[in-house]
Amino acid sequence: MIKVVLLGAGNVAIHLAKAFTVAKNIDFVQRYSRNSKNNRYFNSKIPVTNEVQNLLKADVYIIAINDDSIDAFSKTLSLNNGLIVHTSGSIPLTSLTNKLRRGVFYPLQSFSKDLELDFKNIPVTIEAEFEKDNELLNDLACSISKNVYNINSKQREKIHIAAVFANNFSNYMFSIAKNICDENNFSFDILKPLILETANKLKSLDPEQAQTGPAKRNDKKVIEKHLSQLENEKKEIYSLISDSIIRSN
Amino acid sequence: MIKVVLLGAGNVAIHLAKAFTVAKNIDFVQRYSRNSKNNRYFNSKIPVTNEVQNLLKADVYIIAINDDSIDAFSKTLSLNNGLIVHTSGSIPLTSLTNKLRRGVFYPLQSFSKDLELDFKNIPVTIEAEFEKDNELLNDLACSISKNVYNINSKQREKIHIAAVFANNFSNYMFSIAKNICDENNFSFDILKPLILETANKLKSLDPEQAQTGPAKRNDKKVIEKHLSQLENEKKEIYSLISDSIIRSN
Repeated sequence: MIKVVLLGAGNVAIHLAKAFTVAKNIDFVQRYSRNSKNNRYFNSKIPVTNEVQNLLKADVYIIAINDDSIDAFSKTLSLNNGLIVHTSGSIPLTSLTNKLRRGVFYPLQSFSKDLELDFKNIPVTIEAEFEKDNELLNDLACSISKNVYNINSKQREKIHIAAVFANNFSNYMFSIAKNICDENNFSFDILKPLILETANKLKSLDPEQAQTGPAKRNDKKVIEKHLSQLENEKKEIYSLISDSIIRSN
Repeated sequence: MIKVVLLGAGNVAIHLAKAFTVAKNIDFVQRYSRNSKNNRYFNSKIPVTNEVQNLLKADVYIIAINDDSIDAFSKTLSLNNGLIVHTSGSIPLTSLTNKLRRGVFYPLQSFSKDLELDFKNIPVTIEAEFEKDNELLNDLACSISKNVYNINSKQREKIHIAAVFANNFSNYMFSIAKNICDENNFSFDILKPLILETANKLKSLDPEQAQTGPAKRNDKKVIEKHLSQLENEKKEIYSLISDSIIRSN
């Protein structure tokens, strides 16, 4: 059994806690939370503390807090030789205090509090300074996910940039689409099957192969007609992305 | 039974043909194709012609050809009072010859030849000049889809613009993400669960609510770090979309 303490109470912590609670070879001994705001999202049987001095002994301490606070928070911990890891895509391993054995445990997913997720399908990327710690993190990750990757800090930063495009920016395209629906009084529901299929296609096609639309066809007439009906940021974004698709043809 | 003739042999025609072949109250009497290139994608039991003079009598003639050719092609038809419709999002009803009863039958989906689709879940938007034709198109659409919408040409053009963002541009974000994976030697597979979840979230959240990431948090430090690692078009796109997300906060 791997003894785990989870520090933080945000979206990542909520979903990790759920996965740890049901995982077979994990002993989820304690969690740390500064306040009780999100307590209702956690299993009440897991002991909780708001004092770092009261942390129990564990094999791995998982920090799932805001990126900006990781560095300073790690310095407040003294862990009797436990392994400390953070869960951030954009923070290097070396941001953790070098007084502790350290690593990274980054689940590649966009978490929302109220949406259920099957952690088994979420890729987890791990990194550690020592081979033994890497084995420990690998065992921990494999106990909740089918997809575990060894990734160093430099690669993880690239993955994070790719994820911003794949998740944050694609979602913003959906947001603009919804805005156009709202402005013209038809339901965004009409676009949802198309959006689901856009993502589903990637199971069997590369995105380059799946690309369709006026810019892919270099259909200047349709592009001009669309641009004439858009303003400000929507127009700029339509224009920049269309030009980029045309150049990539 | 509604007698249907299908004109065209591209992606839209291939998927419509499959849906018509299995629909109960549709008599799929004939299809028209200039050449035999895509014949293997069609049920060989449906009669096919490459001469417009040989078109059989039907209730509805569905033109599923390139946008640019619709106008001229419709003028070559003389249809014994059948209803003619096109399947394009960006072409107005009035592009069809006014010598015939005319309408639009636009399925809102991005079709690929080799990917199976359940037409029942694909929204179909219809438009006609006469109430009776609208009823006919509604019956036709309802026989293959659960989601049928009455949409005029002006609204359909807006839907098409929204679909470009929701489908073409979001797919291009996936494409850039894959490109970053390729350049840094890790598999695009690592991002696929995230992409699927990005689309799935919209079943229960609006895209505004689902928005996450550095720009949403107005995290200038991460944004600058990412921009410093991007070049050219990727950098421009990252910058423009991030600024737009920040302003929308």
